[in-house]
Amino acid sequence: MNALELKKQFPILQQEINGHPLVYLDSAATSQKPVAVLDALKHFYEWDNANVHRGVHTLGSRATDAYEGARDKVARFIGAARREEIIFTRGTTASLNLIASSYGFGVIEEGDEIVITPMEHHSNLIPWQQLALKKKAVLKYISLHPDGNIDMEDAEKTITDKTKIVATSYVSNVLGVVNPVKQLAELAHWHGAVMVVDGAQSTPHMKVDVRDLDCDFYAFSGHKMCAPTGIGVLYGKKHLLESMEPIEYGGEMIDDVGLYESSWKELPWKFEGGTPIIAGAVGLAAAIDFLESIGMDEIHRHETQLAAYAMSRLSEIEGVTLYGPRERKVGLITFNLQDVHPHDVATVLDASGIAIRAGHHCCQPLMRWLKASATARASLYLYNTEQDIDRLADALIQTKEYFG
Amino acid sequence: MNALELKKQFPILQQEINGHPLVYLDSAATSQKPVAVLDALKHFYEWDNANVHRGVHTLGSRATDAYEGARDKVARFIGAARREEIIFTRGTTASLNLIASSYGFGVIEEGDEIVITPMEHHSNLIPWQQLALKKKAVLKYISLHPDGNIDMEDAEKTITDKTKIVATSYVSNVLGVVNPVKQLAELAHWHGAVMVVDGAQSTPHMKVDVRDLDCDFYAFSGHKMCAPTGIGVLYGKKHLLESMEPIEYGGEMIDDVGLYESSWKELPWKFEGGTPIIAGAVGLAAAIDFLESIGMDEIHRHETQLAAYAMSRLSEIEGVTLYGPRERKVGLITFNLQDVHPHDVATVLDASGIAIRAGHHCCQPLMRWLKASATARASLYLYNTEQDIDRLADALIQTKEYFG
Repeated sequence: MNALELKKQFPILQQEINGHPLVYLDSAATSQKPVAVLDALKHFYEWDNANVHRGVHTLGSRATDAYEGARDKVARFIGAARREEIIFTRGTTASLNLIASSYGFGVIEEGDEIVITPMEHHSNLIPWQQLALKKKAVLKYISLHPDGNIDMEDAEKTITDKTKIVATSYVSNVLGVVNPVKQLAELAHWHGAVMVVDGAQSTPHMKVDVRDLDCDFYAFSGHKMCAPTGIGVLYGKKHLLESMEPIEYGGEMIDDVGLYESSWKELPWKFEGGTPIIAGAVGLAAAIDFLESIGMDEIHRHETQLAAYAMSRLSEIEGVTLYGPRERKVGLITFNLQDVHPHDVATVLDASGIAIRAGHHCCQPLMRWLKASATARASLYLYNTEQDIDRLADALIQTKEYFG
Repeated sequence: MNALELKKQFPILQQEINGHPLVYLDSAATSQKPVAVLDALKHFYEWDNANVHRGVHTLGSRATDAYEGARDKVARFIGAARREEIIFTRGTTASLNLIASSYGFGVIEEGDEIVITPMEHHSNLIPWQQLALKKKAVLKYISLHPDGNIDMEDAEKTITDKTKIVATSYVSNVLGVVNPVKQLAELAHWHGAVMVVDGAQSTPHMKVDVRDLDCDFYAFSGHKMCAPTGIGVLYGKKHLLESMEPIEYGGEMIDDVGLYESSWKELPWKFEGGTPIIAGAVGLAAAIDFLESIGMDEIHRHETQLAAYAMSRLSEIEGVTLYGPRERKVGLITFNLQDVHPHDVATVLDASGIAIRAGHHCCQPLMRWLKASATARASLYLYNTEQDIDRLADALIQTKEYFG
């Protein structure tokens, strides 16, 4: 793939910010959208827009085909066995909360264990923490090695026969590590627990196969993978989704509604009450087409190479602390510059047209583990180039000089 | 206003369906989008797209300004006293479920009463029904007059000191009646109950003032008012929202996250866990600008006139049964044609390029009350014209002849 050519397909990346060509290094927060996705949205609204499922008119059929076609595409994209295992949600956060509120609330009892890691994003931490508090269950954390990788020996001790749920990210949004979720799933299943995977940072960047991982639930967002904001996915194994109660009630998800009781539709609609995020799903399908036209393995290879280059350039700058393992499998570079506050680093970089993120990255417990109140983070995607990394490195050197 | 001229601003309405110019009469299911809204979406993604709140770079600031600016616009649009009383959600269904799951679950106890009406959409019925079942509370229904209007004498008997929540639609999505929610709110408050209003069918079509209504909660969707799918609003009085627990946990909604406990941000963000539906909010703001450039009173006047014309044309057709009161204050015409199944009516109309809806309209209890298994429904918006109604009436006459 040619990132310089791909970049041209992203209108937003053609602009100047503060007099400099924009270098966007904040894709882990949200990705930019290619013309193909924007065109798909426009086409949907200009030709096919209608509410889905209940309409017998032509636009209703077209919109339903587009929406349900997006479900088929997502199922194939992540290797799901069945289309009804794909639930459209508002995003990763909504998907993970759905698992905790429905599956979790249904199975967790007093004294049961829920096992996570200290590197989890708040969206894969607080739902389990609050569930444990409500149910008087035990929340346990698997230890991390000093470089940020999961300590699998500790995982073997922490996951026990009392464990009902194990939940981890596939890729950390701070450390850039790829977690061994397949092995964790095996361990969880050995003890009769289910494996929940937060795929927010993996799905956009690498080939994912939920059946190969053998995870029970898998959550991700469209907006981090070239699709619009407001669309996400919950994958769940059919027998688990079937055992679960809906948490939102409304149109589309019912079989029969009486004055005093109701029954629910079959999967996947049981979990999709109300008008769905129709155009969002259409946009997600277009994003999948776009990503697959490049190839997920190609994207992963490009980002891994670029991350290695970035690690090498940044480690040459005296005073830069790099967090996480030295070997990066994904394009996430988290760092600090001497005693300059990362917000100040980000502000100075912005003056040079370089967009990075600074803060706790929705990972306050991990920040405490790293003994950092906050960090700077540069996150890469398919449209980033070596020139972008050079611009970042040069600007960091200038920043360092600026702050003396 | 000139509906014929306004129609030109809706690209989707310029097409032919089955060889005939499209007549779209399904806006109560979802509305079409004007160029101004599509342009706002495109502009956001091509210039300003970034994740909000946490970003210190230029795009992050622009996206945050656009998103929080949309909140200000919504607050003003519905007459809210404070911007923090506006929570962005996935849509009306999500908003109503949030009230039931958070406020409702917090206050309802065994023996308490929840009062609704038999005309409620499933999204304003099942959340209360299921809450009542979970809490062993009593779900009560206010009777309707034969024409579908709420029986206020019965309301006075049904709402008692045991009532904790009264919930009704402002406008019925089937009967086309405008409910006296201001009087119901007064009655509810007299008994110490809160008033929840489902504004899905009112907000797009008339001036709404939540402070004048003095309702405690008000829910609506963007997609029914020219905005994208996947964005909605929950309005709640500040002291009530402050008393409520969040139901979704993740990024953006936290103050401090520890390993075993967490605290939440102030309003409105406490209820907006995860990346928000940023572009959806931007699209909603553009839709409000568009609607206000015409004027909500103008839109209401146009639709009321058009509905009266439609009622008059359809009542002239022998064999047409019209449901709900004869005097329409909104553009919703629900009917059946002799013993032709409404699905067949809709299918035949579609062959002439006319899009109406047929079914239970997510109102199964109301269908039983109407003694109809299903109905046809033509629903109007600002882009509909007398010619559209003529096309509908003429096609219905043909349909009647076709089925003998």
